[in-house]
Amino acid sequence: MAVYTEISDDDLIAFVAQYDIGTAVACKGIAEGIENSNYLLVTDRASFILTLYEKRVRAADLPFFLGLLDYLAGRGVPCPVPLKGRDGAALRHLSDRPAAIATFLEGMWPRRAAPEHCAALGEAMAQLHLAGDGFTMRRTNDLSLASWRPLLKSIGARADEIRPGLAAELAQELDDLEKAWPADLPAGIIHADLFPDNVFFKGAELSGFIDFYFACNDFLAYDLAICLNAWCFEIDGSFNATKARRMTAAYGRVRPFTRQELDALPLLARGAAMRFLLTRLYDWLHTPAGALVTRKDPLEYYGKLTFHRGLTGPGAYGLD
Amino acid sequence: MAVYTEISDDDLIAFVAQYDIGTAVACKGIAEGIENSNYLLVTDRASFILTLYEKRVRAADLPFFLGLLDYLAGRGVPCPVPLKGRDGAALRHLSDRPAAIATFLEGMWPRRAAPEHCAALGEAMAQLHLAGDGFTMRRTNDLSLASWRPLLKSIGARADEIRPGLAAELAQELDDLEKAWPADLPAGIIHADLFPDNVFFKGAELSGFIDFYFACNDFLAYDLAICLNAWCFEIDGSFNATKARRMTAAYGRVRPFTRQELDALPLLARGAAMRFLLTRLYDWLHTPAGALVTRKDPLEYYGKLTFHRGLTGPGAYGLD
Repeated sequence: MAVYTEISDDDLIAFVAQYDIGTAVACKGIAEGIENSNYLLVTDRASFILTLYEKRVRAADLPFFLGLLDYLAGRGVPCPVPLKGRDGAALRHLSDRPAAIATFLEGMWPRRAAPEHCAALGEAMAQLHLAGDGFTMRRTNDLSLASWRPLLKSIGARADEIRPGLAAELAQELDDLEKAWPADLPAGIIHADLFPDNVFFKGAELSGFIDFYFACNDFLAYDLAICLNAWCFEIDGSFNATKARRMTAAYGRVRPFTRQELDALPLLARGAAMRFLLTRLYDWLHTPAGALVTRKDPLEYYGKLTFHRGLTGPGAYGLD
Repeated sequence: MAVYTEISDDDLIAFVAQYDIGTAVACKGIAEGIENSNYLLVTDRASFILTLYEKRVRAADLPFFLGLLDYLAGRGVPCPVPLKGRDGAALRHLSDRPAAIATFLEGMWPRRAAPEHCAALGEAMAQLHLAGDGFTMRRTNDLSLASWRPLLKSIGARADEIRPGLAAELAQELDDLEKAWPADLPAGIIHADLFPDNVFFKGAELSGFIDFYFACNDFLAYDLAICLNAWCFEIDGSFNATKARRMTAAYGRVRPFTRQELDALPLLARGAAMRFLLTRLYDWLHTPAGALVTRKDPLEYYGKLTFHRGLTGPGAYGLD
């Protein structure tokens, strides 16, 4: 699902006139992304992405997101660059929504991720983490450890509708995570949602990161943990150690891991699995049948959680 | 709603390689159109529209549609031009669907149609009708007079759920239409679905017609009748005689009306209103609440039907 908000042609023309990007010649809603309304905006000079921010993104966070993209792009990260209007502002309003225009990134996200994609991702993710250093705005990860207890509480016994015994098992898992979660690891800006559909490639070359609307300050290795879950499991639930090794090795060549990070990685991967398991459970139990949004199977992340829980060290990820 | 079918990146690359259009660098689903899956395909040379034909379009009709676009474009009509692959074929398969690539048309459809838009439409529609002359393939209008009786029967008494007395009123109207429908008027290729979202403009200049998937052979003036309904009524249901006059006058300057067409126009407009009233009624009564497709208000077309039924000649359209 995508495109919640219609834009009148008159409004669009007036909006585009506030930028030095030529005249709009086409504007088409893009059927990707569920958080916002995205349009491909074509002017007589180039193509751009026009985003109208819908209610799932907090308006108070938009300066952080746009400022971050600007900062990262200036440090060589391939990401959308928010355009500034003639008044110097990147954020304005259109059709009663906060709105911004960004550069158009070429590339396609890989429908079937290969080990080469994972290697390219590891390298570029480490570069992203290094590039975020020095960005002065901060945003707490509101979907990390502290949020899981209230999420689990709101799901309650209904978790057992998905799998008998799941409620008790998750309560135990959360106790473990809360006790063992690291207090201190190298931290900085993470993307926090680097699923394949947010990473563009041209052939084997990584051409761009998109959709920074979960970006926040957190442990850098937690971003890698999210990616191990999102990229290194096969459809049948099996863990592809080759993909993991290629990803972690490429990452480590750009930003070497500390001993503490290596030791914490299985726990971070459990936590990352917990985060997506909980939000998917919540969405599954709260999305009416027939709604516009596709519900994602929570049990996929239950399997991943179980896998990481069985590990004694980072060896399974190709690290030691 | 749009984009029913996913395309893998490998399949896309192989598909694009069958054309001489460069290499794909981006492919984004477009959130417009409910009949097919449309993608904006960007290559290192230009932008194109890639269409996967879903089941609402009959595969047997595709050679007619693609052949027609090719023919019309060759005669100067601003419409998408289907590209031929290296094998000379425009129609092939992708993700198990019939698929074709066409040129990208610049422009935006007018959210608020002004009299200038109506004048430009009248002129370009007449040019479209003249350009269709000589096209040798034929396609019957399967949503014209002959289809209304079975449609009405399938709706039955449930029409009264929308408006008490509607079933009887429509039965009477259909009797009238069947008795009075012209046997012979200037005929040829019509678009048959020229609603504002299928007509692109750059400023006041008409830049393109899209979505020819209802195109067929029928009375040329019936296409104009459809447009009088789709463009010349205001949100409050009132008929805008200025818009109608601008449209019909511009049309007539390019292709003068016959006396028979002028006399038949109120009846054709009633028929055109009946066609959309019936299909909207059908969809309204058969679309489950919460489905992906937005249901369109059938009563909008009941009001239009009533308007035309009250006319004694084409004077209200600015013609005599």
